[in-house]
Parts: sequence; structure tokens; C-alpha cells
Amino acid sequence: MNNEKIKLGIIIGGKSVEHEISVISGLQTYFSVDHNKYDTTIFYLDKNNHIYVSKELNSIETYKSNYINKEKEVFIKNINNQIYYQYLNKPKKSYPIDIFIPVLHGYGTEDGTVVGFLDIYQAIYTCSDLIPSAIIQDKVATKAMLKLGNFPNVEGIVAIEGKTIEEVPFPAIVKPAYLGSSIGIKVVKNNEELEQALNVAYKYTNKVLIEKAIINFKEYNCAVIKDHNELITSTIEEVKHDEEILSFSQKYEKSEGKMSGSPNRIIPASINEQLKEEIIKISKELYRWFDLKGVVRIDYIYDLDENKLYVNELNNIPGSLAFYLFEKEGIPFTKMIDILVTNAIIEKHNKDKKITTFESNVFNKKSLKLNK
Amino acid sequence: MNNEKIKLGIIIGGKSVEHEISVISGLQTYFSVDHNKYDTTIFYLDKNNHIYVSKELNSIETYKSNYINKEKEVFIKNINNQIYYQYLNKPKKSYPIDIFIPVLHGYGTEDGTVVGFLDIYQAIYTCSDLIPSAIIQDKVATKAMLKLGNFPNVEGIVAIEGKTIEEVPFPAIVKPAYLGSSIGIKVVKNNEELEQALNVAYKYTNKVLIEKAIINFKEYNCAVIKDHNELITSTIEEVKHDEEILSFSQKYEKSEGKMSGSPNRIIPASINEQLKEEIIKISKELYRWFDLKGVVRIDYIYDLDENKLYVNELNNIPGSLAFYLFEKEGIPFTKMIDILVTNAIIEKHNKDKKITTFESNVFNKKSLKLNK
Repeated sequence: MNNEKIKLGIIIGGKSVEHEISVISGLQTYFSVDHNKYDTTIFYLDKNNHIYVSKELNSIETYKSNYINKEKEVFIKNINNQIYYQYLNKPKKSYPIDIFIPVLHGYGTEDGTVVGFLDIYQAIYTCSDLIPSAIIQDKVATKAMLKLGNFPNVEGIVAIEGKTIEEVPFPAIVKPAYLGSSIGIKVVKNNEELEQALNVAYKYTNKVLIEKAIINFKEYNCAVIKDHNELITSTIEEVKHDEEILSFSQKYEKSEGKMSGSPNRIIPASINEQLKEEIIKISKELYRWFDLKGVVRIDYIYDLDENKLYVNELNNIPGSLAFYLFEKEGIPFTKMIDILVTNAIIEKHNKDKKITTFESNVFNKKSLKLNK
Repeated sequence: MNNEKIKLGIIIGGKSVEHEISVISGLQTYFSVDHNKYDTTIFYLDKNNHIYVSKELNSIETYKSNYINKEKEVFIKNINNQIYYQYLNKPKKSYPIDIFIPVLHGYGTEDGTVVGFLDIYQAIYTCSDLIPSAIIQDKVATKAMLKLGNFPNVEGIVAIEGKTIEEVPFPAIVKPAYLGSSIGIKVVKNNEELEQALNVAYKYTNKVLIEKAIINFKEYNCAVIKDHNELITSTIEEVKHDEEILSFSQKYEKSEGKMSGSPNRIIPASINEQLKEEIIKISKELYRWFDLKGVVRIDYIYDLDENKLYVNELNNIPGSLAFYLFEKEGIPFTKMIDILVTNAIIEKHNKDKKITTFESNVFNKKSLKLNK
């Protein structure tokens, strides 16, 4: 990296139902980078995961017009521990990238897919590793891990396509296992509604989580970022929805994902000190328990009838990287990006210290027979 | 794919402690492919995940000599829904591949990393998807999922680097969370041994599972393969080790991984009909519960003192693809490869039917502001 600027690659889009939200989050990130400090390139994955690099991709107008110049497709390579991208159609020239910032949302990208791709090239990136990314994308595995770690979570059962399920306590909430956002989620009050909701959910995944629906509740979110060895929690927000829960979930599913439903955010959430402390404590514990990296957002549900806090879900790469929650803590987005980049370098260094290969003499075993 | 032969790519090696074992499993697979039916290419990932294709890589001698021709490095691309590989140094020519058979073992490859890479190209492959691959690589997440699904598993606690742990019931067995095979695994009898074992385990991962050690036991393995919608279980094997458990784990760790320790396999295991039925039933349930694909092997421990069967671990891509366990069921390796290939096509078709993207008008929202 010499004395030159660090070369950042912001990865956006991809084959995901939250493709557009990722583009917006990614451009927000791009416009907040300190361009005196970093050379920044956007890597746009289209809905078939073809990767494009071109100046036009820095502008929202390009995406609005839906015109992507196919000549600008690139591939990635690693030569002597330096990552480069290179245009498929221009074989002579390649361009170095030092660190990637994946700003991807949803099943198919945020779930470790792009991290797996980057790991093939031994790239440095600013988010969680593959295994934790995959686990927190899966609502069933997340619930399993929450239970194992004794974190407060709503009781639920798992439905698998083609198998009969146990008795469901109504009202219940039906959630496809792998999808992010609120897509495919429905509240159901009886077996008929359950069956309909499962039919919808199975369009997305063949594993579905059915939880006891909490009717009278508030939603609180808290983001966490790692700065060296310290975990910093964000301001806690309350998310308010215009409509009541039952129709909200239906409306949300029919419209455009994370940005829709126009949640009103109350920042900071109007909560007492005790609940605030509880949310901060659990958020930090979850970050460690799930072995996360970078910035994540943890979403809670507070049951107003039982006065009880539940962990709802963990967002590996939150919308807008949750910058609006750290701003209120005196950490502007530009500074957040610095923290993410610095920490990515530290995490890669620590990871490389872990033993991942060793020499072996297996090939020289006398007993080795291949051709049967 | 026309009337030509289907073009298979067998992926082997990679940045993993089980690199060499994967090369052996992969070459075994290569030599069992029906070459009248398939054109088969080996994709060798070296220990830095650089990908090579060349005829020499079909021979074990190449790996013994440890000479890889760097001119033969390739990259992957997808043009109009056809996957191609292309030499980095020969930009003009590219070669199509229809279906990949990942024969990869261990953390860093088998854990979804290579599947993530393949998903970027929308490739068809013969193993589980990314999320299940990642979950069953993680011994802690596996335990969490076993508990949630009420599958029999040994009681355990989780240790995280830098945090103090609960009281441990000795003798206990210490297992790094993410590593496959038996690397870093130790039986400990007191706090001093535990501390030593944790120091070793933390060299591999910063999350460690500590389980109650079962001293008087037998080990049984059963593989499962999906053929259309039917799950076929293999013959059950008993794995016997020359030495007693305490020294076995130490010896195993110090030598070369999966092939070492020279387990004697008793095929079929000498077990009664009831235990056999139980293992077959649980194996099929686990395959569905974890949402697996392709061929997997499930390893059990039978406690001889308590007469109780426990699920020990799930292997996403078992050594030698567990062909030796299906042979005894009248399914030769060549036929197994046919089943894997056919099923990969079916699974990809089913997956593509699931909704993964949809149109959105988020970009046209009036309220959209990017540049703060």
C-alpha cells in the first residue's frame, strides 16, 4: 500500500431481493468516504452477479435508467498477494484494490456468498466472516444459537416443506428461514391463514420459522461496531410503523422491502436507563457470541404486556451501515468508514495468524491407492 | 448442453488443513467418472486458492513433486448462463463447464467458501448450499441446531477466547468450533489440561466447544445421498482406532488429519437391527433438518455405559465422498457420481424457482437522498 492512498472497493447490488436497497446503502457509503484518504471504486453486481466497474456506477441516475454498460464487466485476481480487477474485454490492464467494503443486503449476497468469493482471493473486507454471516442469515440457526446462548428469544417451531408440523399457538408469525428484511413474513390467526402463509413462505425457502406473535410491542434497534478490541454500541432507535402489526406485515411484503413501510424512527428511543443498559449489554454479548465483525445491527422486540425484551434478528450488514445511529454518538459516517477499514486490516492479520494449513506427508503413504 | 458430453469440473485442494486429503478424494472421484458420459476437468486450488487447470493435475505424481505450473492459472466467468474457465495468460480462449463437483475438505473450502464463489457465477454444483455448509462446519452452531431439533447430542459448553468459562465436567473433550477432522481436539481431565488444550484450540478458532467426554464408546458413520426426492442411506461403518481415546486424540492432532490414525473400518458395523434402524432414521431426519444436498456423512458416538446414541458431527463433503459405504449397497462410485450430477441439476432448477429477486421502484422514491 506504500504511501499512496488505500484503494477501497465498495461492493453493491447482487442477486438478492434487497438489490436496490444495497445500491442505495452503497452509494451513501461512497459519498461519505474521505476521498483525500482513499481511492474508492464501486463494484456493482447486477441481478445475475456479473460484476461491473465504471465511473457511471457512482451515480444513482445510472441505476434509475437501468442501463449498465456490458463492456465494463470485470473479474478479480490475486497476484502476489495483491488483489486486482481487470476488464473481461481488456486483457492487458489491471487495477489494484486493497480493501473491500461489502454493502450488500439479503439472502444471496449478505449471507456469506460474497465473502466466500472474496475469501478465494484472500481479500481484506470490512464485514463478518462466512460462517457467522451464514448463521445470522438463517432465522432457524439464529434461534438455535440464541437458545444455546440463553439469550431471550420468542418461542418458535420450525416447518420444513413437505413435512407436517406440530400444533401452532395462534396468533403466530410465519418467517421464511433465509430471507432478510420482512419479505414473506405474515401474521396468522388460524390454520387456514397458516397454510396460506406457509405457501407464500415456501416460495422463498423450504424451511420456515413459526413464532408466537407478540401483538402489543415496540421495536428497538441497536448497532455495534468494533474499534480495535473495543465494542462501540450506537444510539438505540425505536422503529414505529404507521399501521398495526397484522396489516403491516402484509403491506411490507407486497411493496419493496427494507425501505418501504416508511418506518418512523425515533432516535434516541424513549426508553428508561435500565432497558437501555440491557439492550447495550445484550448487543455486545451477541456480537461476541456470533463471532461478528464490522458493523452489525441487532433488532429487538419489547413485549409491552409482559414487559420483556426479546432478540428478534441480527443484521450482518445493516441498511445504510446504520450510520445514522452512530452519528448521534458523535461518530460521523466518514469516521465509521475509517474504523471499519482499520479493523478489517487488524481482523485479517489476526485471522492469518490462526493455523489454516499445515504440511502433510499424506501423499507419500505407501498404502495410497487411487485407481480402484 | 446439447448432445455433447456433460462437462464436469472436479474442484480439489484449497486453503484448508485438509488440502491433501481433498486432493486424494478428488482424484478418486476423477478416476471413477464414466468418461464416456462426461468430459471431466480437475480444478486444483493451491494453498492460496489460486485455481489451476492442466492435464498434469489428473496425476498424483504432480502433487507428490509439489510442482504446479503457474502458467496454468485460470479464472471463471459466466457468459449468457454458461460457465467458462479461461487462462489468465491466454485471454483469447475459454472452455465451458456445466457442473461442478466440489471434493473439498475442511474449514476454508468445504464450509461454503467455494460454494459462495460458485454462486457468484450461478454455477450448478453437487453439494449443499452455502448456509447449511457453513452451519455444519461450525461445531457450536451444529450443537445449537441439534438441540433445537431434539436430536441426541452430548452436553457441552462454549468457550470464547478472552472470556472466562463456566465449570467444566471432567473428563471433557475440547474442540475448536470451525475445524473439520480431528485437528486441535483433546481430551482433558483437569483445569490445567483444559487450559493447555484451550491454548492449542485457540490457535485454530476463537470459539471452542467443550463437551463431556464419553470414555467407553463406539463410533458409527452413515452416509446419505439424495436421488431425486428419495434419501438413500449407506451401509453403516464402525470406525475403530488402534489406541485408547486419550492418546488417540493427541496422536491424531500431531499427524496429518483425516487419513492418519489409520482407523480400521468395519463395514458393515456389527450392530443390532434396532440400532441400525435408529441410525438410518436419524440420518435421514438430519439431512432434511439441516437442508443438505449431495452426499453427506453423519458420525455417531455410541455410549457403551449408557447404551445411548449421540450425533457427533455432520460432514458436508465426506472423505472419498463416502463411496466405499455405498458400494456395499450395490451403488458403485460411478453410479454415485451420476446420482450427484442428476440431482445437482434438479436442485438448481428448484432453487431457481424460489424467488430471489423482484422488481422494485425504490430508486424513484421522491424522498431518496444520497449525498448528505
